[in-house]
Amino acid sequence: MTAVDLAAFVEELADLAGRTVLPFFRTAIGAEDKSAGGQFDPVTEADRAAEVAMRRRIRETFALHGIIGEEFGAERPDAEYVWVLDPIDGTKSFISGMPTWGCLIGLIHNGRPIYGVMTQPFTRERFVGDGEVARWRGPGLDHAITERKLHTRSCATLARATVMTTSPLLYSEEALKAFRRVEKAARLSRYGYDCYAFAMLAAGHVDCVIEADVKTHDIAPLMPIIEGAGGIITTWTGGDAAQGGNVIAVGDPRLHAAALNLLAS
Amino acid sequence: MTAVDLAAFVEELADLAGRTVLPFFRTAIGAEDKSAGGQFDPVTEADRAAEVAMRRRIRETFALHGIIGEEFGAERPDAEYVWVLDPIDGTKSFISGMPTWGCLIGLIHNGRPIYGVMTQPFTRERFVGDGEVARWRGPGLDHAITERKLHTRSCATLARATVMTTSPLLYSEEALKAFRRVEKAARLSRYGYDCYAFAMLAAGHVDCVIEADVKTHDIAPLMPIIEGAGGIITTWTGGDAAQGGNVIAVGDPRLHAAALNLLAS
Repeated sequence: MTAVDLAAFVEELADLAGRTVLPFFRTAIGAEDKSAGGQFDPVTEADRAAEVAMRRRIRETFALHGIIGEEFGAERPDAEYVWVLDPIDGTKSFISGMPTWGCLIGLIHNGRPIYGVMTQPFTRERFVGDGEVARWRGPGLDHAITERKLHTRSCATLARATVMTTSPLLYSEEALKAFRRVEKAARLSRYGYDCYAFAMLAAGHVDCVIEADVKTHDIAPLMPIIEGAGGIITTWTGGDAAQGGNVIAVGDPRLHAAALNLLAS
Repeated sequence: MTAVDLAAFVEELADLAGRTVLPFFRTAIGAEDKSAGGQFDPVTEADRAAEVAMRRRIRETFALHGIIGEEFGAERPDAEYVWVLDPIDGTKSFISGMPTWGCLIGLIHNGRPIYGVMTQPFTRERFVGDGEVARWRGPGLDHAITERKLHTRSCATLARATVMTTSPLLYSEEALKAFRRVEKAARLSRYGYDCYAFAMLAAGHVDCVIEADVKTHDIAPLMPIIEGAGGIITTWTGGDAAQGGNVIAVGDPRLHAAALNLLAS
């Protein structure tokens, strides 16, 4: 890493992403269908504009770093340091006017996510983590911006847990059966929140988040936030989640083995 | 109605509700289980405190008006004017830290909802309608509070529609089959947003919202907003939605008959 202040640089990238994306929120813009004929998968001009802007800033500052982005693929993905960008995680929430999408920015060092940020420019919230510590910045009761450390909450058993997933409609038949086993064991199951669900797990309001078939750019930026807040995130078989696939995050490490057992059985 | 300025009084109630509820958001508070042994249905101290405060203000100002509230039942429900209060619509979102709950306040005149507000104190948004006009107030690009009229968007067929419901887990088996028929015909289906989904329908970002087994206090306050923005809201059989039950809202009136047919078939 060079002498550039990493935290300050990531804040600058997050400001840039938020500033670029927000003007497109709740405006009538066309959504292309990437998966022509398949399931509806909108991409927006906002997504592209923000990724272009972030890529430019990264290249200017770290010429040797790799970049993996949702919209424009990978450059130097085998570099020592690789940036992972998802300017709008939750594009379906975004185009439906919901404030529960986020801009994701992650930094991977030798394959391991070491820094991540989720920023929500409409609610003025930012979640940042380095695997050791995680922090939230956002509006307090007087609407002025305040800051606090994030800690997952304690939850000893699935029977007391709130479980979330973005949508059961995104699961294969097999994966849905596995998810349903955990859902049935849980106290409360809720759908619909993309990266915001992982952020709320880090903040101690949700106990378990399960997703099927996510990509690196959906998940790597969230890992240092979840881990920094005291949570665990792996694949459904307990492997490294950084490459994506079927992933599970728990706030209380005691839930991990029980949830994995149900996903596998 | 007395000489009191209705719009100003409702704004005052909404401020009161928001101010009372927000300090409880994202704090660790106990959630009772109203439906002991049944499905998890949290109520919070915030809900109760806000309803008590609003009831007091209404009684002081309109001694003859009725009040129907989520937490403390009905008083004078047969009065000419009846207030309908749901301090936290979306308690499950609230306790999960999600910003997609709202405080609902409605006024019914001779059985017909004539004024409604949904306020979201965390995002600083307010949706207000009188059946003729609907307005949104909230943060603009510079985060200063701005205001605009709400209009539902045009959507000629279900095949192009975004459909939302809070959770398929809340449906009976029969009702779920009916909902699935509409969902299958739609372009995009999303779960999880309570009153926020109806607000986004009024704002022109969602085309159809379907809910099963709602109560008067969940829906009457939203009706003048949806209708004021150009939408239609009825029961699944086309009847008056003000008493609750299974309800459907569409932004474009052309969707109404097709959706009702699918719900009935």
